[in-house]
Amino acid sequence: MGPLAPEQAMMMALEEGSKGAGFVSPNPLVGCAILDQNYQLIALAHHERVGEGHAEVNALKQIQNTTLLNGAHIYVTLEPCAHEGRTPSCAKTLAELPIASVTYGLEDPNPLVSGKGAEILRASGKKVQIFDGLKDELEELAEIFLMNQRQGRPFVGVKVASSLDGRIALADGTSQWITGESARTQVQYLRGIYDAMVTGAGTILKDDPRLNSRDPRFANKQQKLIVLDPDGETLSRIAEWNFAKARSSDDIFVVVRPGLARPLSVGRALEVPVLDQGFDLKELLQTLHELAIHSVLVEAGGFTVSRFLRAGLVDRLYLFMAAKILGEGMSWTEGLKIRTLAETPRLRKIRVQTFGEDLLLTARLRS
Amino acid sequence: MGPLAPEQAMMMALEEGSKGAGFVSPNPLVGCAILDQNYQLIALAHHERVGEGHAEVNALKQIQNTTLLNGAHIYVTLEPCAHEGRTPSCAKTLAELPIASVTYGLEDPNPLVSGKGAEILRASGKKVQIFDGLKDELEELAEIFLMNQRQGRPFVGVKVASSLDGRIALADGTSQWITGESARTQVQYLRGIYDAMVTGAGTILKDDPRLNSRDPRFANKQQKLIVLDPDGETLSRIAEWNFAKARSSDDIFVVVRPGLARPLSVGRALEVPVLDQGFDLKELLQTLHELAIHSVLVEAGGFTVSRFLRAGLVDRLYLFMAAKILGEGMSWTEGLKIRTLAETPRLRKIRVQTFGEDLLLTARLRS
Repeated sequence: MGPLAPEQAMMMALEEGSKGAGFVSPNPLVGCAILDQNYQLIALAHHERVGEGHAEVNALKQIQNTTLLNGAHIYVTLEPCAHEGRTPSCAKTLAELPIASVTYGLEDPNPLVSGKGAEILRASGKKVQIFDGLKDELEELAEIFLMNQRQGRPFVGVKVASSLDGRIALADGTSQWITGESARTQVQYLRGIYDAMVTGAGTILKDDPRLNSRDPRFANKQQKLIVLDPDGETLSRIAEWNFAKARSSDDIFVVVRPGLARPLSVGRALEVPVLDQGFDLKELLQTLHELAIHSVLVEAGGFTVSRFLRAGLVDRLYLFMAAKILGEGMSWTEGLKIRTLAETPRLRKIRVQTFGEDLLLTARLRS
Repeated sequence: MGPLAPEQAMMMALEEGSKGAGFVSPNPLVGCAILDQNYQLIALAHHERVGEGHAEVNALKQIQNTTLLNGAHIYVTLEPCAHEGRTPSCAKTLAELPIASVTYGLEDPNPLVSGKGAEILRASGKKVQIFDGLKDELEELAEIFLMNQRQGRPFVGVKVASSLDGRIALADGTSQWITGESARTQVQYLRGIYDAMVTGAGTILKDDPRLNSRDPRFANKQQKLIVLDPDGETLSRIAEWNFAKARSSDDIFVVVRPGLARPLSVGRALEVPVLDQGFDLKELLQTLHELAIHSVLVEAGGFTVSRFLRAGLVDRLYLFMAAKILGEGMSWTEGLKIRTLAETPRLRKIRVQTFGEDLLLTARLRS
C-alpha cells in the first residue's frame, strides 16, 4: 500500500470505528489509523467494548517497532479524551510519544472533555487539527453518543418492513415475511447494535415475537426489550411470551399507564404518563435514559411508529422495501395526521442498499 | 481506444440504441457498433427515427474508408431485418460487404423476419451468432416492440410520485409538488418516450394538467393523450382544459362508456366496455392498439393505477419517491384489494436512481 492521503486515513478510521457497533454503549464508536512519517499505514483499530481500550490505545498496541512512531500521524474520528480514569487519558498518552501530528474528526461534545484533549496535545508540541471534511460520516459514526450528550435522551431508530406502496400488512392483517431472508438477516444485525428494542403490546398479542438478535456476533449481549402496554394487556401471561423466554428477566421492561404497575414474575413494570391516546414519548425516553438505555430500535405497528414520528422523536429510519405491491391494508404511517406539505417529516442523507430482492433505505430524520 | 471485447461492443450498441427513445415507434430501438478486423471501434449508430435508416445502415454511413470493412465485426442489438421495402433489407446489405462476422442481441420476434436475417447472412459466408449475455438489457431496450409483437397490445408504463410511505396526497387532498424539480424534469423525459399519456377524468377535474412533455427533445413530437372518463365528465368543456390547449385535436382521445360518445369540438370520443366499476382495460388496450398507439404512460390517481395493477396490465413502474413522510392520505394503490401475499404484484430488476433529494425506482412487473 502506498502513502495515504488524509481523507483515506480518516475513511479507514471511520470504517474501522463502526466495527464496535453494539458493544461500546454508553461510549461513542471511535476508529483510529496511525501512519508513519511517510504516511504509510502502521496501525488501524477501534474501541471494541465498553470498559476496554480506547481506539488510540488499541492502535498503539499494534505497533511492535516503536521507532515507527517517530514523526507519525494519528487520525482518529473523535477528539482524544482528556479524562483520567484507571488509566491515563488518551491525550496524555499521545502527548508523551514522538509523534508529529494528531488529526481528529469531531470535537468531543461532552463539556467536561471538549477541547481539552486538543489542548494537552498542543501543549506537548504536536500539530493538532480538526479534520476538514467527512462531517456527515463522522457525525453518523458517533450519532448515538452525540444524541445522548446533546439532548440527554436515547437515540431512536425505527425499523419498518413495507411493500413499495408503504403497506406493512394486507387488508386481512397478514404481515409476516414481507421481506426476504437477506433483509431479515440485516434486521438481526440492527437489533444487535441498539441497546434495547421497543415494541407495542399489539405486536406482542398478534405475533408473539422474540425480538432478539439471532446474529451470532451478539449472542452474548444483553438484549433489553421495552413493551409499550398502556393497559397492561401482556402482564398476566408475562412469562409465557416468546420475548420473555428469549432473554433474562433483568432485560424486560413493560411500560404501563400510571396506576397499573405491579410486581411481575419476570421483568419489571414501569409507569409513564399518558398523552393523546398513548404514552408521553418524551417522558418515556427520559425514563429509559435513567435506566442507562442509550439507544432504542422501535419495531412496532403503524400506530406506534406514527406516534414517534408525530412527536419528532425518530432519529434514524431503516425502511426495508420488498419488491412487491400489497394494495389496501395497513400502512406504516397509519394514524399519522399531517396538515400541510411543509409539516411533513423529511429525511436526509438517504442511502439505498439491496438485500436480495429487497431494498433498504436508511436515512436520518431532519431535526 | 484499444480493441473492444464483445461485451463492451454490445454495451455501447445498447446505450446508443436508447437514444432513439420516443422517435422510432412502431419500430424497435436498435443500436449498432462496427469494429474493424482488429476490434477497434469504427462506427456507432442507432435507429433515429421511424421512416429513416436502420441502425446498421446509419453505422455504415459513418465509415468513409470502406477498406476498413474488410474482416470487420458488426454488433447489433437486434437481428438485422430481412424485410425488403423501398430499400434492401439490412441483412442483404450486410451480406454484400466484406465483413467477417455479425453478432446480434435478440432474435426478431416478428415471425415474418425471425431467423431470416441470420439465414441470409450465413448463406453469404459470414460468421453469425446470437450474443450470449446482456439478455435483460437487450430485452429492456426493445421492450415496447417486444410487447407489441408478442402480445399484440401497447406497452404500459405507470408513473407514480409518492412519499416514502406510499402516499400521493395528504389527507386533505393536497398533492402537488411532492417531488422536486429534478424529478419533475425526468418525468418530462418519460412523457416524451411514450406514444401517449393515459390519465383519469378525476385528475383532469382536480388539477387540469397539460400532461405533455416540456422536454425540448420532444418539442416537435405529437403527444397523444387518452382521458379515461366513463361518465363523460370532461366532454362539455373539452376545449377549455389545459390538456386540449397543449396539443392538437388529433392527439386527444376521451374514452367513455358505451352510449356516451358524441362528436367533439376537439379530440375524439371513443367507447370502451365497462367492467368492475371501470373500463375493461384489455378492451381499452385493444382499442389503442388499433389506433396505432404502441406505448402508453399512465399518470393518474390511485384508483386508475390500481385498476391497471389488478388487471396485470402494468409492464414498467416508475416510482418517484420523495424523501418525505406524508402520513394519512391517499396511497397510490388505493382500491387495490389483494387477498394473499402470493397474489401480490411483484417487481423485478429494480433500479434506483437519485434525482435531487428524490429517488426513482424503476422496475418491470413480473408477468
